[in-house]
Formats: sequence, structure tokens, C-alpha cells
Amino acid sequence: MRGIDYERLLARRLSRLGFAVVRAPSSGSGTKMDRPDIIAGRRGLIVAIEVKTTSRRRIYVGEKGVEQLVRFSECFGATPYIAVKFKGSGMDWLLIHPRYLKREGGTYSISLEEASRIGITLESLILRRLGEYS
Amino acid sequence: MRGIDYERLLARRLSRLGFAVVRAPSSGSGTKMDRPDIIAGRRGLIVAIEVKTTSRRRIYVGEKGVEQLVRFSECFGATPYIAVKFKGSGMDWLLIHPRYLKREGGTYSISLEEASRIGITLESLILRRLGEYS
Repeated sequence: MRGIDYERLLARRLSRLGFAVVRAPSSGSGTKMDRPDIIAGRRGLIVAIEVKTTSRRRIYVGEKGVEQLVRFSECFGATPYIAVKFKGSGMDWLLIHPRYLKREGGTYSISLEEASRIGITLESLILRRLGEYS
Repeated sequence: MRGIDYERLLARRLSRLGFAVVRAPSSGSGTKMDRPDIIAGRRGLIVAIEVKTTSRRRIYVGEKGVEQLVRFSECFGATPYIAVKFKGSGMDWLLIHPRYLKREGGTYSISLEEASRIGITLESLILRRLGEYS
């Protein structure tokens, strides 16, 4: 599967969880204008998502990608997340807030172990939100 | 200019006004999944926009388009607007809330005169919002 297919799968999952979802694939048009891969909203909970997958045990995100995601999210009024998928690990998608990424040089990264410890599952994203109202 | 070019122009205007903008062109991929043409956010003010242009004095929007826009917006937590451009009129973009559209049969519409009376300019969209905080 290509990266774009993973984006589509994640978008579908969010949609089934009740989110209104917009995908903004970079589509090779050159200017990406700070857009995240996915922006999704559910009754005021708004998340801007950059999708990353790997077959290894550590996921890397370029400095520029992280900065753009954070900048876009601040401007839009959304919470930024890196959605990580460790292929072949059997683990579901995990949402990682950029503040938990480890920075080294011009690259941010997170290991499978760290991700599984601090990552948020898609379902708990909603439960957290529901919890705020209960 | 094609419809897609007008979408791009409007997206650029919103961007210059400080919005984080995502365009979701239908791209002929078939399933449009309730997506609006543009979703834009600026410090918590979030708008979902369907773009319509005409060379005539009345703009029509299909029932399905309006329903999808309203449904998406409710789910996302955005305010729905039809952005109308009366080409050749010299008038700037006007944002029309769906509740102001006139319904006849399976079609919604608004005339140039009605639009200029109740439409919101892009600039006043921001000023209104600022007003809420002042």
C-alpha cells in the first residue's frame, strides 16, 4: 500500500467515528501551503493530522513537516497530531502530539515503544472529549 | 476562468486574511463524501464553504449541495456559507448563510440584490468575529 492509501484508510476510520473529514493530499501540485494530510472535526473537536507509516521501529518526521503542522493548527484552531502506523506490528493507529517527538538535528522521531506509551488511539480521542462534558 | 480557478482565488483571499485554508476539490474522484469546496479556520472561527459563480443575476445551488454543506458543517463544528461571485457585476465575494437561500422545488437560489443586502464580505467576517471579543 502507498502512503496515500493509508491516508484514505485513516480518513475512513475517522469518518466512521463521527468525524467530518477533509483530506488534502499533496497531489504533486508543488505548493503544499502548510496543509496537513487530514483535517477532521467532530462537534468542536478539531484535529489536524500528518500521516506517517513505517515498517521499522522508529518513525521520522522532517522538521519542516512538523513546523508546518503546528503552524497550520495554531492558525486554524486545531490540535496537531502525527498519526503513526507501525506496519506489521499489529498496532492500530496512534496519534502523537508533536511535543512528544524527540528532536535530533533537523529531524523529529518517535520509537514504537514511546508511541505505544504516550500515543492516543482514535477511539480514546473521542472518549477524552466526551469526558470533558461528563 | 473555470470554477476551480475561482475556488483557488477565494482560498488565496482567505489565506491573506489570516485563515488556515484547506481546499477539497471534487477532483472527479466520484465520491465527494459531503466535503465542502473549502474549509478555513482562523483562531477558532471555522467556515465551510461551497463556491458558486454566475454571469447572471441569480445563483442556484442544488438541494443536495446545500444539504451536504449543512450536514458537514454541523458534524465538523463549522459555520456553513455559500460563497457567491456575480461575475461582471464588479461585486466582491459575498458569503451567504444557507438559511437565506430561497427554496423552490429541489433548488435553492439567491438573487444579486438579495445577496448584496444580506451577504457578508470576507473582511466583515473577520470584523464580526473580532467584535465578539471586544
